[in-house]
Amino acid sequence: MKRSLLLIVSISVLVGSIIGIGKGQEGKSRAPEFTSDNRLVRPKDYREWIYVSSGLGMTYGPAARAQQDSPPLFDNVFVEPSAFRCFLQTGQWPDKTIFVLEVRSSSTQRSINKGGNFQDALVAVEAEVKDEARFSEKWAYFSFGENGPLRDTASALSKEACYSCHYANGAVENTFTQFYPTLLLIANTKGTLNPGYKPNSSSD
Amino acid sequence: MKRSLLLIVSISVLVGSIIGIGKGQEGKSRAPEFTSDNRLVRPKDYREWIYVSSGLGMTYGPAARAQQDSPPLFDNVFVEPSAFRCFLQTGQWPDKTIFVLEVRSSSTQRSINKGGNFQDALVAVEAEVKDEARFSEKWAYFSFGENGPLRDTASALSKEACYSCHYANGAVENTFTQFYPTLLLIANTKGTLNPGYKPNSSSD
Repeated sequence: MKRSLLLIVSISVLVGSIIGIGKGQEGKSRAPEFTSDNRLVRPKDYREWIYVSSGLGMTYGPAARAQQDSPPLFDNVFVEPSAFRCFLQTGQWPDKTIFVLEVRSSSTQRSINKGGNFQDALVAVEAEVKDEARFSEKWAYFSFGENGPLRDTASALSKEACYSCHYANGAVENTFTQFYPTLLLIANTKGTLNPGYKPNSSSD
Repeated sequence: MKRSLLLIVSISVLVGSIIGIGKGQEGKSRAPEFTSDNRLVRPKDYREWIYVSSGLGMTYGPAARAQQDSPPLFDNVFVEPSAFRCFLQTGQWPDKTIFVLEVRSSSTQRSINKGGNFQDALVAVEAEVKDEARFSEKWAYFSFGENGPLRDTASALSKEACYSCHYANGAVENTFTQFYPTLLLIANTKGTLNPGYKPNSSSD
C-alpha cells in the first residue's frame, strides 16, 4: 500500500510538472499588466506575439508625424496571441486585447540591396489596449518613448493624441484593421466592420 | 488495492491527456514536411510563426524582380519558432530550420492614410529550408507560386535561382540576416557572422 501511495505521489508530481510546462507555454497569452498607479507595463516579448502587418512612411501615429523630413519609418504591428485567436473566431476584439506598434528606421544601401527599404534601428514602441473596466472609453493608447531608451511603463495618452482618430476612423472598433490585410479579410467575412467605416474617406 | 490501481490508471490517463495538450501547443514548432518525391509542403500557419522583418521594394528575390514596373512589393519574413529559439541561444540556424518569405502588394490611399505604403493582397509565398541530410548544400529554396492560387507543394529551385546568391551574400550561413535587425544584433553578440560577409559590397 505504501508503494502504491508513493507511486501516486510520484505521478501527482509529474502531473504538476506537466501542468507547469503547459502554463509556461500559455504564458505568452496574457492580459496587459498595469502598475498600482494605472501605468501600462511595456510587454517585453511582443516580437513573439502574432504579427499583424507593417507599413512604411504611413501618415498616422505620433512617431511618424515627428519624422516628416527624415527617411520614412517602418511600423510593425503585433497583437497578443489569445486576442488574435478570439478575433479569428468572432471578428471582434475581446476585453484585455493588447496591440504593440513598433517603429523602426529604414535603410536602403547594404550588401546586395541597392534599392527599396529594409528595417533598421528601433525608434519607438507604442501600445493600444482594450480594458473595459479600467478605461471609460474602453480603449487607451500608450507611448514608451521615441529615439532613446524606452520607458518600462507609460500612462494613457490624452484622448486627442490617439483615441479620437482611432475612434473616428478604425475599421473594427478602434483598430486600424483597414491596414491589416489578413484581419480585414476576417472582419469582412464575419461582418464586423464598423457601420461608419468608409475606406475612401477619413474623419477627424 | 483495486481502488489504488484504478486511481493510478485514472492519473495515467490524465497524464496522457496533459502530455497530449503539451504536444498540441508544441505542434507549431516542427520540422519542414516533405512529400515522398521530395517536395516541400507549404506551411499553412507561417503567419503564427516568429516574425523576422519586412522590406519594401527590395531588389532581391524572384517575385521582386518580376515586378520592376509595378508599385513596390512588401516582403515579410517568418521563421519557425523552435529554430528561432535555437538562434537566440547560439546565433546559428539548427538543422530543419524553415523560413517563409511572404510577398504582398502595397497600397497608399485608404481611409486616413494619404502617404506612404501599407500592405495589401498576397502575391507570393517562398521558403528557405536547412536540411543537411536531404540537400547536399544543406540549404534549399522553394516557390509556391506568384500572382495566383498557391501550390500546396514545391520542389527545390535550381542553385542559380536563389542558393548561389544566398551562399555568396548571406550574413549568417545562407540567410540574409543583414536585413533582420533583431537577429543581426544576436549574430553580432554571438560572433556568428560569416567571415566573408561584407555589409558594403555584394558578390554574385
